[in-house]
Parts: sequence; structure tokens; C-alpha cells
Amino acid sequence: MKTSWLPIEQGSDFSLENLPFGVFKTEGLTPRAGVALGGYVIDLSALYSSGLMNGIGISNNVFNKPYLNDFIALGKPVWQAVRSFLQTMFEKENTSLKDNDNLIKHIVIPMKEVQMLMPIQVRDYTDFYSSEEHATNVGIMFRGKENALMPNWKHLPVGYHGRASSIVISGTNIHRPKGQIRPDDNLPPVFSPSRQMDFELEMAFIIGKSTNLGDSVSTQEAEEHIFGMVIFNDWSARDIQKWEYVPLGPFLGKNFASSVSPWIVTMDALAPFRTEGPAQEPEVLPYLQYEGNKNFDICLEVQLQPENVEPVTISRSNHKYLYWNMAQQLAHHTVNGCNLSIGDMMASGTISGPTEDAFGSMLEIAWKGTKPVTMADGSKRVFIQDNDTVIMKAWCEKEGLRVGFGEVIGKILPAKP
Amino acid sequence: MKTSWLPIEQGSDFSLENLPFGVFKTEGLTPRAGVALGGYVIDLSALYSSGLMNGIGISNNVFNKPYLNDFIALGKPVWQAVRSFLQTMFEKENTSLKDNDNLIKHIVIPMKEVQMLMPIQVRDYTDFYSSEEHATNVGIMFRGKENALMPNWKHLPVGYHGRASSIVISGTNIHRPKGQIRPDDNLPPVFSPSRQMDFELEMAFIIGKSTNLGDSVSTQEAEEHIFGMVIFNDWSARDIQKWEYVPLGPFLGKNFASSVSPWIVTMDALAPFRTEGPAQEPEVLPYLQYEGNKNFDICLEVQLQPENVEPVTISRSNHKYLYWNMAQQLAHHTVNGCNLSIGDMMASGTISGPTEDAFGSMLEIAWKGTKPVTMADGSKRVFIQDNDTVIMKAWCEKEGLRVGFGEVIGKILPAKP
Repeated sequence: MKTSWLPIEQGSDFSLENLPFGVFKTEGLTPRAGVALGGYVIDLSALYSSGLMNGIGISNNVFNKPYLNDFIALGKPVWQAVRSFLQTMFEKENTSLKDNDNLIKHIVIPMKEVQMLMPIQVRDYTDFYSSEEHATNVGIMFRGKENALMPNWKHLPVGYHGRASSIVISGTNIHRPKGQIRPDDNLPPVFSPSRQMDFELEMAFIIGKSTNLGDSVSTQEAEEHIFGMVIFNDWSARDIQKWEYVPLGPFLGKNFASSVSPWIVTMDALAPFRTEGPAQEPEVLPYLQYEGNKNFDICLEVQLQPENVEPVTISRSNHKYLYWNMAQQLAHHTVNGCNLSIGDMMASGTISGPTEDAFGSMLEIAWKGTKPVTMADGSKRVFIQDNDTVIMKAWCEKEGLRVGFGEVIGKILPAKP
Repeated sequence: MKTSWLPIEQGSDFSLENLPFGVFKTEGLTPRAGVALGGYVIDLSALYSSGLMNGIGISNNVFNKPYLNDFIALGKPVWQAVRSFLQTMFEKENTSLKDNDNLIKHIVIPMKEVQMLMPIQVRDYTDFYSSEEHATNVGIMFRGKENALMPNWKHLPVGYHGRASSIVISGTNIHRPKGQIRPDDNLPPVFSPSRQMDFELEMAFIIGKSTNLGDSVSTQEAEEHIFGMVIFNDWSARDIQKWEYVPLGPFLGKNFASSVSPWIVTMDALAPFRTEGPAQEPEVLPYLQYEGNKNFDICLEVQLQPENVEPVTISRSNHKYLYWNMAQQLAHHTVNGCNLSIGDMMASGTISGPTEDAFGSMLEIAWKGTKPVTMADGSKRVFIQDNDTVIMKAWCEKEGLRVGFGEVIGKILPAKP
């Protein structure tokens, strides 16, 4: 285990083995790139300006920008060089920064003094539907046990395009969306604030290497195109979605907001947590076959917190439950020649586990309103109420090594008048 | 009718009343903004640099860029000032440019010397499904006459998100996409180049004024957010789409490519061609109600051309047939607080007319393969074959006034090996 000369709390998500990238600002200064280490943010722009980074092959200050896209465009060898430079610089025995109080003051900023911002400019956003447990649960609720999974589901990673503009950073509060709903199938639809506000527990990955139109990416090459991952809350208005989604898929039931955690954890940091995925039966077509461990053992947790009440944990799931892995998702997405851009965000779909306490949405947890969940103040929830806050956490842990994502948090405000 | 000192061919799409915006390049020079006038491109960057534009309120050369987004961001009064400045400058009696051969040489470029490029950096892309005739045709083919229109169709403008990265400029050739198809419902899917390549005749509008997350746009305000329109070919692989699209909508059947015409015709240029839309029954909810004429009388035409054979016209339709107009589409899109960005592209969905010769896709024209179309060389088509070219044209015409879009053209190349 690497230890640092910076005091890092035991059990911190942001160990020296993690070093996730984000964008932050501080009072009076412009947005810039940083890396999380314990309770601190390493200001990469200030570090670059100090000259200490000279020699790792970056020819201008790509860190002094409001998004990471330009840094990401420099390519994986550069991401790796920066991470490895930081691991050395902050390692216990290294004195190049440690003994320079004046530099430390500019470069090492307590996390509570920063405001985190959207780390990337999202180009295209795709949402998959890759948890068998989630697809099955939803299928049972709406179509019965016999037809729970659609015929295509085990043959391809079902996905659809979503709205990039409304992906927001953790901490952004969201007004309850309004729209058309049809509470009674025998009456015309009505205009109303959504009465069935939900979250979806997801993880998303960010594309770090583009492709040209017409090119495909194999499952073997796929992970080379991934910069890293974040926690993703795919807010969903179930009643709007239910009325609108036939035949072209979800639209206004989803595109009012999605929330992401601020720190992008790299694939290198996640490497120790690779694990086997579920067996795939029937056998998939050759372009979806893969070798090696492509799933990741990432613990997931959802808390729900009414205003001025303690949060309660309402779900404990894991990224490893996903039936379709990221390499398969990318191979499928590009098999027709669809081109990737740096900054594309691809979400997993709701990650539900095999047991009831591992379901990833209120729709499933409260089973379509039939099993209310009790809050710390005794009140009940079947969907999210106004001024409720949803908190999602994600972390990997193994033999004392912890690599975490922090959290994504968001509060539902009343609908705008 | 305005006439110009520049020789403009009778019947040109690009009259002095039109002046559509685009991005072009010429040998050895970088991409920049231009306006089409007759058989010429007015180089706006060169015009700006000449100083002739001083005084219309543009403080730096937003035209010397690879996309129009920065120009569009200056706002509608500036778009209008530029158009009206050009109308004056090129009007018959105006001599400020007319008598300066040296300037003309730099500013007025024959169209055949330029290469047109994507005019905007597309942010989010939305595709609607707003032609009743198209939705009905597809519904009859796949679900029978009784259930042709889904229950929601007449209550809201159905739409879904598409892929922005694969929207390409007219003239870009497209490889036939590969993917999963299931030709026999009793057998597993197979991997294959699409066997059912199709086009969709659409028009798209481009957002010129952004909104904040949480805000809605009324039908009254909607057109203030539109910069202009282009012709849009929404290439579709019907067999890939059919197998994948349940339950979350089209994905790989669409996102391998969409093609747009290069010249963005402004709403001001289209104003004389406003016309009444179809009656909407049942009455729509208040947020979708509107006043005035929000449809546009735009003639549409599709030609299909096998390699080395003359093209034949296979469809004649009109934008005015659309059941849902752009103001309703935008009011619906934002009613839940979804935010708009400058550069968003919103397509109409296939625009089919009431008669068989006005259908907007091969699926409808050849009625699911049952009515082959004859080409000029006697060969038959039920879908698009390799090396076939699809040409779409659009124009408005009235009392000698013509405002046209030019064309969008694209050839289907064989699938990549």
C-alpha cells in the first residue's frame, strides 16, 4: 500500500492509489482541473505552472480550463504519466513538494474550500439497460413474469440516446418536472407535475479516445477508449415516461436532469477490482464475445433523506452484477460505424442486484407502490417527495486498499409554478 | 422582388430574399462562414475583414471559425442585421462593393470553387415523429389498420434523442451499416450488413437561443429560439431497427449517419411561406395550443439514383403536412425543464403526404417490399442498394419569389469488410 506525506484519513475514498480527476473552482479563481487526494484537491493548473511537471510531455496548461476534454485528448499515456507523477510526488519519501510550504499553499487545497463543477463537456450521452435483474423486475411489473425480458435482451446490450445538456454535477437541485401523464387509461391525459419521481442507480463511463465514422471498436480494444467512471443518477419521472415512451423510447421522462459525481476514477485505479461477469446464455454473437475479467467489483449504496431528517440506506448493490460489460457495450455501440467523441458519456442503466435490498430504483424497491419504504422520521415513501434528497455512493475495497468515487447527491425541489 | 447587381440565375434557390448561412472552405484556406447568393458564396469573414460591415454591432470576426455557433450566439438582432446588410449591399443600386473589383475577388466566390462543411457543431439532436401520414403508414404495416396510431400520438409530439456525432454534411458517402438482424423470428439473430437500407425525408431546425435547466418555452416564444432550417436525411437500417428498438427506441438502426444540407435558411427568409397547419383533434392541452400560422409551405422532393444511371423522382411531399409544428415541438421538449443549447438540431421525423407519391421513405413507397420502384435503367428497388445515391431537395415558391434549401445528397457504399 502506498502512503503519502499528506495526512490521509483511514478509509478515504481518495487514496494515493486512486487519484481521480475533476474540475473545481475556488473563491475568485476560474475553473480548473484537480485531483482528489484524501481531504485535499491537488490543483493541477497550479502544479503545472510551478514547473514541477516539466518533462512528462505536456506542452501547455491543459489544466487551466473549465473541462477536462483537452487534457483527455492528450491520450492514455499522458493520463498515466500524470497519475504516476502524482503518486511519486505525494509518496511518503518524496521531498520535492513536501518541503516547500509556499508551493504547497498554492497546490494543495482543502476539499471544503472548493466547489466541484461538471468535469467534462458531455458530447453524446447513451444510456444502456444492462442489468438483468432491473430489466426483469421492470418487465414483471409491466408485462408479467412470462414476458419479463424482451426477446432481444440477452442477444445485445439494449441502449438508447439521452440528453447531454441536462447532465448536471452532484449538488445541483432539480425541480420536479411537469408534463403529460395519464393516471386513468379511460380518460384523456392531464398536465401535471410528475407524481412518480424516481432515481436510477447507475454508473457511467467517459470516452477518452475518439473514432472515425464507419469504424468499429472490438471488445479487446474497447477499454482503451475509456477514460474513467463516475456515479450516475438517471432521474426518472415514471408517469411521464409511461405515457410517452411508445414507440420511440423515453424522452421527457428522463431528459429534465441526470446527476453525476464530480471525480472521474480512471480505469487504472479500478484495475485491482476486476472480476468475472455473469455467465451469458445463450452464447453471444462473435463481435460481443470477450476475454478476461471485464466486470468491476464496485460497491454501490443509495440513501434517501427527507428534509431535516437523517438519511436511510435503501439499496446496496454492486457494479459487478451487470450482465453486459462496458467492452461489450462499446463494441455494440460502434459495430454499425457510429463514431465516438472524447467526452461521450455512457451510462449502465439501473444496477439492481439479485435481492430486494439491492434494487436500484424506487419503482423496484417499493415494487410499483405496493411496498412503501420507511424513513427515519417514520414517514413512508413509494416515490420521491418534494425536498427529499437522494445520495448515491460507490467504492471499491480489498485488502486495505480503497478506491472510491465519493458521492452524487441531489434534492428534488417542488415543481416551478 | 429584390434584384441584385450580381448575376443570379432565374429560379435559383438562393435569391436575394433568401441569404442562407453555411460554412465552407477553399483551396489552402481555413473553414469560414458564408452566405449563398445565386451561384456564389459571399465570404463573410473576408467581408468582415474589409471593414464594410463596421457598424452593425459585431465586435470580432465570428465568421472566421469552423462553425456558425459563435455567430448564432450573438442573437437574432445580429442575424437580422447581417441579412439586411447583405440585402442592401448586393441590391442593384448599391455601388459600395459593386464597383470594387479587388474586394469582389476576395468576397464573392463562385460556388463551384468551394467545399461545403458542417455549418454548426451539433450539441444535442432530437428527432420527432410528427407526420400523421408517416406514423399511420408505419403503424398499418406493423400493427394493422385498427391500431395504426399509438394512443399518445395525437396528444403530444412524440420524439426521441438521436446521435449528434454522426450527423454529416451533404456529399458524405456512408458505408452500409452492419449489425444484428433477425430475418426469421423462429431462429436466433444473425450478424450481417443491413439488408433494408432506407432514407427518411425530414427537415430539421437549429436552436439559436439557449435556455436554463428548469425553464420552459411557450409556443408563442418558441420561434424566437430557432435560427433556421436544413433538409435532413435520417438514414435508417430497418432490419437493425426492428430487432433492437423494443422497449427503448431506435439506436444502431439510426445512429450510423444522418445527412444535412449545407445552407441554413433563416426563419425570416421563410416568413412569406407560412401556412395553416392541419386541424388538431382531439384538442391539445393548453401548453401545446398556439396562435397564427406555424406551418411552412416547403416543397420536398426525393430522387434515387443507381450508379451511372439518371436519377428518378420517387417522392414529392411538403413540410406543411406536418401535424405537429416546430413551436409545439419546442414547447413540448422544454415543458419538463429540459434546457436548450445553441446548436441543438431538431428533426421533424419523416414527412409523408396524403398520397402514395408523397411518402417519405422507401419502407412506405415500396410498402414493406411489396411495391418495387423502377429505376431509369429498368432495375427495381424496394430498399437502397449499394452505390445508390439519394438526393433530397426543398424549396419555397410563390409569386415569382423563390427561397430554396439546395439539396442533401448521399451515396450508400458497400459495408466495410
